[in-house]
Amino acid sequence: MSQPLRLGIAGLGTVGTGVVKILRQKSVLLAERAGRAIEISAVSARTRDKDRGVSLASYAWEDDPVALATRDDVDVFVELMGGSDGPAKAAVEAALKAGKDVVTANKAMLAHHGQALAELAESTGAVLRFEAAVAGGIPVIKALTEGLAGNEIERVMGVMNGTCNYILTRMEDGGLSYDEAFAEADGLGFLEADPQLDVGGIDAGHKLSLLSSIAFGTQVAFSAVELEGIGSVTIEDIRQAADMGFRIKLLGVARMTGRGLEQSMAPCLVPANSPLGQLQGGTNMVVIEGDQVGQIVMRGAGAGEGPTASAVMGDVMDIARGLRVSTFGRPAGALKPAVPAMVSTPAPYYLRTALADKPGALAKVATALGEAGVSINRMRQYDHTNDSAPVLIVTHRTTRAALDQALAGMEATGVMMSSPVALRIEEV
Amino acid sequence: MSQPLRLGIAGLGTVGTGVVKILRQKSVLLAERAGRAIEISAVSARTRDKDRGVSLASYAWEDDPVALATRDDVDVFVELMGGSDGPAKAAVEAALKAGKDVVTANKAMLAHHGQALAELAESTGAVLRFEAAVAGGIPVIKALTEGLAGNEIERVMGVMNGTCNYILTRMEDGGLSYDEAFAEADGLGFLEADPQLDVGGIDAGHKLSLLSSIAFGTQVAFSAVELEGIGSVTIEDIRQAADMGFRIKLLGVARMTGRGLEQSMAPCLVPANSPLGQLQGGTNMVVIEGDQVGQIVMRGAGAGEGPTASAVMGDVMDIARGLRVSTFGRPAGALKPAVPAMVSTPAPYYLRTALADKPGALAKVATALGEAGVSINRMRQYDHTNDSAPVLIVTHRTTRAALDQALAGMEATGVMMSSPVALRIEEV
Repeated sequence: MSQPLRLGIAGLGTVGTGVVKILRQKSVLLAERAGRAIEISAVSARTRDKDRGVSLASYAWEDDPVALATRDDVDVFVELMGGSDGPAKAAVEAALKAGKDVVTANKAMLAHHGQALAELAESTGAVLRFEAAVAGGIPVIKALTEGLAGNEIERVMGVMNGTCNYILTRMEDGGLSYDEAFAEADGLGFLEADPQLDVGGIDAGHKLSLLSSIAFGTQVAFSAVELEGIGSVTIEDIRQAADMGFRIKLLGVARMTGRGLEQSMAPCLVPANSPLGQLQGGTNMVVIEGDQVGQIVMRGAGAGEGPTASAVMGDVMDIARGLRVSTFGRPAGALKPAVPAMVSTPAPYYLRTALADKPGALAKVATALGEAGVSINRMRQYDHTNDSAPVLIVTHRTTRAALDQALAGMEATGVMMSSPVALRIEEV
Repeated sequence: MSQPLRLGIAGLGTVGTGVVKILRQKSVLLAERAGRAIEISAVSARTRDKDRGVSLASYAWEDDPVALATRDDVDVFVELMGGSDGPAKAAVEAALKAGKDVVTANKAMLAHHGQALAELAESTGAVLRFEAAVAGGIPVIKALTEGLAGNEIERVMGVMNGTCNYILTRMEDGGLSYDEAFAEADGLGFLEADPQLDVGGIDAGHKLSLLSSIAFGTQVAFSAVELEGIGSVTIEDIRQAADMGFRIKLLGVARMTGRGLEQSMAPCLVPANSPLGQLQGGTNMVVIEGDQVGQIVMRGAGAGEGPTASAVMGDVMDIARGLRVSTFGRPAGALKPAVPAMVSTPAPYYLRTALADKPGALAKVATALGEAGVSINRMRQYDHTNDSAPVLIVTHRTTRAALDQALAGMEATGVMMSSPVALRIEEV
């Protein structure tokens, strides 16, 4: 049997503690599977004296994660501190510079510095793995990078923020308003300290940008992800969507087009009877479409101690077994700068607005759509309340550019009491 | 860039041809991802002169797959001939003996000879990969062996025979009888030459036995899989199940219990609103439950040129990248002989029978169940037709042993017009 693989673990929150527990409780099983023992040499966290429900007495302690990352008795630096910059990034850089392999769950760091870190890893022959950064316990990075490596990837989609999906599910099944569902999620501790990371789509956008890089061989381009949070979704939208056979999800979609890389993270309508539409509560789902394999759907817990620790351990086990793959599936130098494109693959859209109680108002809206070349699949106008009438429109497939022209035309009619909400209907 | 990886491909049916096409059409992409070129040195098939829609002129030809497998210019032998014994096995053995890596889609061969082949591979340092043997394009072997390697696996389930799922789906949505749906599937070319491989559950049982071995660290034990085909499922069962919120699937279930390894491939009821219940048509699904990750669901095409070739290419790409994992996820010598156990994890059961038109008949059946300690959750008796009355029973959770005792007791009453059908309700 080979030498033991020695870990340094920085960050002993829920996930870090979960990883320590697995390593303590399953050492025989893991050694049998990996062909070598996996040991913890040293750990680091903000607070040393804290009962984490697991004994750390046999591991060296470092206050400074950079010191931990570069210890002689550490082969793999496991970064579970979080934060896109600061100590996490400094320690990961130090580890990679020292030629040590790194396993991280840090989507924000990779979304912002993925290319530089991949280049650094490559320069010293280290590997940088991040299965836990995307969709929790679902082994989707591995599937995309390795299992589906014989495919040209056509589209990647994902519901990758459990908190948003929880809020949308509660609005639908509990009849809660957005604010009520948000408050409920907050009370359950589901929200990040900055809730915009969740409901603004930022966290899920980070994840999508990592999947895009692997799928399309481009440098991570988080800043090019079109982000739209779920705050504009009303319970009325959810009901109307349901009535037409759809559900609303905060859906990430990435595809390579002739114009460039489209990446969007936005509330979308998906068919209620599709796997994405059937996803309820906090569960995550990633859908990968390849030219050979067709559609692969993967579903599982997107967060939590066990699932995230499982993903971290998958990476650790790969390293223990000697599996070495480039960070984003090909050499860092072969990753092309992403050419971002506005999302313009034609799709049907759902529109909601409210019309003034004036004769001909509906006709004016319909005319504005027609003049922009947007044709109407379904339209419903409801009773006027307070001098305004809700109107719902589902368009036939159209480009976003034509839709934006139509929306501008609708605004120009002067008959709308509110700016229209437009949600893409993603065909899945 | 390293030396090219040189393949020898034996078997040029749909899948073999698909692999050749991918290698020809994506050579640049594959080389970029793998860090080296992937080339075909030589091919072999039963018939040389046949238009396969792809040029083979630049590859050496071998009539004998064993000769192909041992060529000096072949690094990886890709076996796509099929058949559990005969030339496929001889050629795989020859390749492994020569220290050449092997990629195969041959579930029957591995189900019958997996342990011996894994030992042979290990003895010469070769790797033996078989992603394409289970669930087509879904990278489930990789997920189970690598991505989830930090978990103790608690249960593996799968709908892994698209033909059976197609037949059951058509019975439900088309109102066809089993014979009609079977004939339709046959007409579409979905059935194996020996249809029992499909509808008898043998093919799916092969796949389950391979998943079990990886999941539980046991030697492949196909002969211990409890097999029950779908031939006994009637349209009435499907309707009744639907009425109670279930769908019937040919479901493989493997779990390790205190008594030993339970493996069954049998028609089961699953909740209609679960991912397994929602799986329609020829698509496959595998569900993996780990102590850390919880439930992971993977869904995709289980057969066909593209999906199966995608899985073969995933294995080839791994080898090209230098990823080397033991055949069943741990050294062959560490795999323990499976201790097979009859499926006896308690579950609810669905029972269907027909009662004679005699006073007290229903009471006698209910008594027989009660005497065996099987309690009734729901029971329905329908109008008599031809002196017999259909009776449907859903039991509370019970062991198979108690159920078998109850079934014997029911037979002994003399009031049943037909032997009861008993289907497990798998709690998912």
